[in-house]
Amino acid sequence: MGPVVAVVGGGQLARMMAAPAQALDIHLRALVEASDGAAGQVLPDAPVGAADDETAVRHIAAGAQVLTFEHEHVPHPILQTLEREGIAVRPGSAALRAAQDKLHMRRRLSQLGVPCPRWAEVTSLAELKAFGEEAGWPVVLKRPVGGYDGKGVRIVHAAEDGADWIAADGRALAEEKVDFRQELAVLLARRPSGEVRTWAPVRTTQVDGVCSEVVSPAPGLDAAGADQARQGATTIAEGLDVTGVLAVEMFHTTDGRLLVNELAMRPHNSGHLTIEAAVTSQFEQHLRAVLDLPLGDTGQMVPWAVMVNVLGSTLPDPTGAYPELMDRFPQTKAHIYGKSVRPGRKLGHVTVTGQNLQELRTIARAAADLLEGQAP
Amino acid sequence: MGPVVAVVGGGQLARMMAAPAQALDIHLRALVEASDGAAGQVLPDAPVGAADDETAVRHIAAGAQVLTFEHEHVPHPILQTLEREGIAVRPGSAALRAAQDKLHMRRRLSQLGVPCPRWAEVTSLAELKAFGEEAGWPVVLKRPVGGYDGKGVRIVHAAEDGADWIAADGRALAEEKVDFRQELAVLLARRPSGEVRTWAPVRTTQVDGVCSEVVSPAPGLDAAGADQARQGATTIAEGLDVTGVLAVEMFHTTDGRLLVNELAMRPHNSGHLTIEAAVTSQFEQHLRAVLDLPLGDTGQMVPWAVMVNVLGSTLPDPTGAYPELMDRFPQTKAHIYGKSVRPGRKLGHVTVTGQNLQELRTIARAAADLLEGQAP
Repeated sequence: MGPVVAVVGGGQLARMMAAPAQALDIHLRALVEASDGAAGQVLPDAPVGAADDETAVRHIAAGAQVLTFEHEHVPHPILQTLEREGIAVRPGSAALRAAQDKLHMRRRLSQLGVPCPRWAEVTSLAELKAFGEEAGWPVVLKRPVGGYDGKGVRIVHAAEDGADWIAADGRALAEEKVDFRQELAVLLARRPSGEVRTWAPVRTTQVDGVCSEVVSPAPGLDAAGADQARQGATTIAEGLDVTGVLAVEMFHTTDGRLLVNELAMRPHNSGHLTIEAAVTSQFEQHLRAVLDLPLGDTGQMVPWAVMVNVLGSTLPDPTGAYPELMDRFPQTKAHIYGKSVRPGRKLGHVTVTGQNLQELRTIARAAADLLEGQAP
Repeated sequence: MGPVVAVVGGGQLARMMAAPAQALDIHLRALVEASDGAAGQVLPDAPVGAADDETAVRHIAAGAQVLTFEHEHVPHPILQTLEREGIAVRPGSAALRAAQDKLHMRRRLSQLGVPCPRWAEVTSLAELKAFGEEAGWPVVLKRPVGGYDGKGVRIVHAAEDGADWIAADGRALAEEKVDFRQELAVLLARRPSGEVRTWAPVRTTQVDGVCSEVVSPAPGLDAAGADQARQGATTIAEGLDVTGVLAVEMFHTTDGRLLVNELAMRPHNSGHLTIEAAVTSQFEQHLRAVLDLPLGDTGQMVPWAVMVNVLGSTLPDPTGAYPELMDRFPQTKAHIYGKSVRPGRKLGHVTVTGQNLQELRTIARAAADLLEGQAP
């Protein structure tokens, strides 16, 4: 029997770890929210439990070589307790805090000298007002904990617009609103022994705060910019002692700077196209990294890869679009996560690879439209 | 919920169907020999039962869109019964007979006009002797049913060398021993509505009757030869009304002819490299074909792909070689099937893709050596 990896979370990220785990004969055990969720459907070993239930987390870690995550929602004290008992937790609790708490992230990145948007912790309307007057309105306001896919992020034009969050949390992260030409993401993996491998930086396009399209490699980023982005992400991984996959979202500003926006310490939506486009996918690499196995080649096998998310569907089940999708776009790779349809929900994604970027973008968008039940 | 595919068999072929099934949200249900076998380990829905147990086969077909196979061992009468009841069996029982019975295969291919080695059904030593005197000794003798990986195939230099098989089976297939420059395999998929897609013909190398190495595309086969091989395989698929993946093994003779050696109507060892090298793998394509979904692009994304089988190991578990394997060969894709180690057993395979064929062959062999526990 190969090694055992325990992962907290039963969504599409754990689901997509299953394929490389099977190929490498790694036994993947997931703590899932529901047995019929995205990961629970496909894994024979998927106990149901909550990520904040210490007993449940301890249960899946028993007998595993390592405990890892597909999200950031395991409370810090639980992870510290498990680490004290000698359980391999990767990424470790200290690193993971920077992905769990955006204020902690900004403090740590500033300590590391990583370029970020101007920011401040604000604990009152007066402090938010002072920040806005200094950095300029509007200001990007973020709740420190629990946000994802645009949730917990708000553009505020006056201090009063943030009153509810500051009242609720007692603190918030205020950031300058950056003028950017494009958003980028750099993915890498780092193993405990220190090896780091980065994939090519990608361009991400968000709609209403949710990732819509990813293009790899990022168009309009020259070799020097790509090197700088990779080096910046490596600095963060080493400075925070991240293990596993790290996604660093960046703004490529109109004046050519690269500023770090967000971090995720797990496989990330911006890396789904590595399944088809790279020698080693982010999901395989995450398993290798957390097991402290040597990392795989991150080279891209094709000139261009484009991923488009399937966000909601008017179909009862997006797989109902397969006959038309597969007939019209035989080169498209569809990934459907087995989730019930809800408006705007990430139900899957499509990836296409090839030579002609504009053609690939058109095909990927049209393919996703079909799965969303829209006439393309 | 996506469609349900029921597959008979719990080996590595069913195991490798699991990944594309997950990606496409196809529910894969396997009838497995053991719950801890290659497929049983990775599939939540894997009832244990025998392929010749009509009740067990009927049980997995219930509620599935289609019943398919990873081997040829479901008895013909069971399949005919299920078809009469309206269950979609793909490939159908009539087609599958040509993969179950080598004498039936030779008769059908001869009817279709497909070039084959000279052959005869022999039911006595006198008939075998007569064939040998006409075609020349030695003769390749095959048991009609149940052979695989060189089992049930023997080179005989005199009729007496086949006495035991003729006595046991009452019949045997005698074939001329062909002088070949290389062995080829052509894979294709065909769906019930008639669409056919072929992959590039590959070169296969057997050692002691077991596939050792596969190279794609086949070196030393020119474009006309490749077209002829693809067309020949298509003729067979259409003539036999095959649905799903069909593998046609061929001899490329020293005088330049292509003669059909064997057929398999399922994903095949010669197509494992399609996982990494082709836009659509044989495992995904088989699922699409038996569901009568439009077939995927079979184009190869890389100049060369090489697969080498891992046959037995001196290690207690081949995954123990990962630290050295992954360190030395970061571009290698390892597939380990979760089977217990036995001498010569197919435990897994490795695939590498890239530009330089000789380098890829060396790397793939060295990687397999490590997994076999041999100093490369």
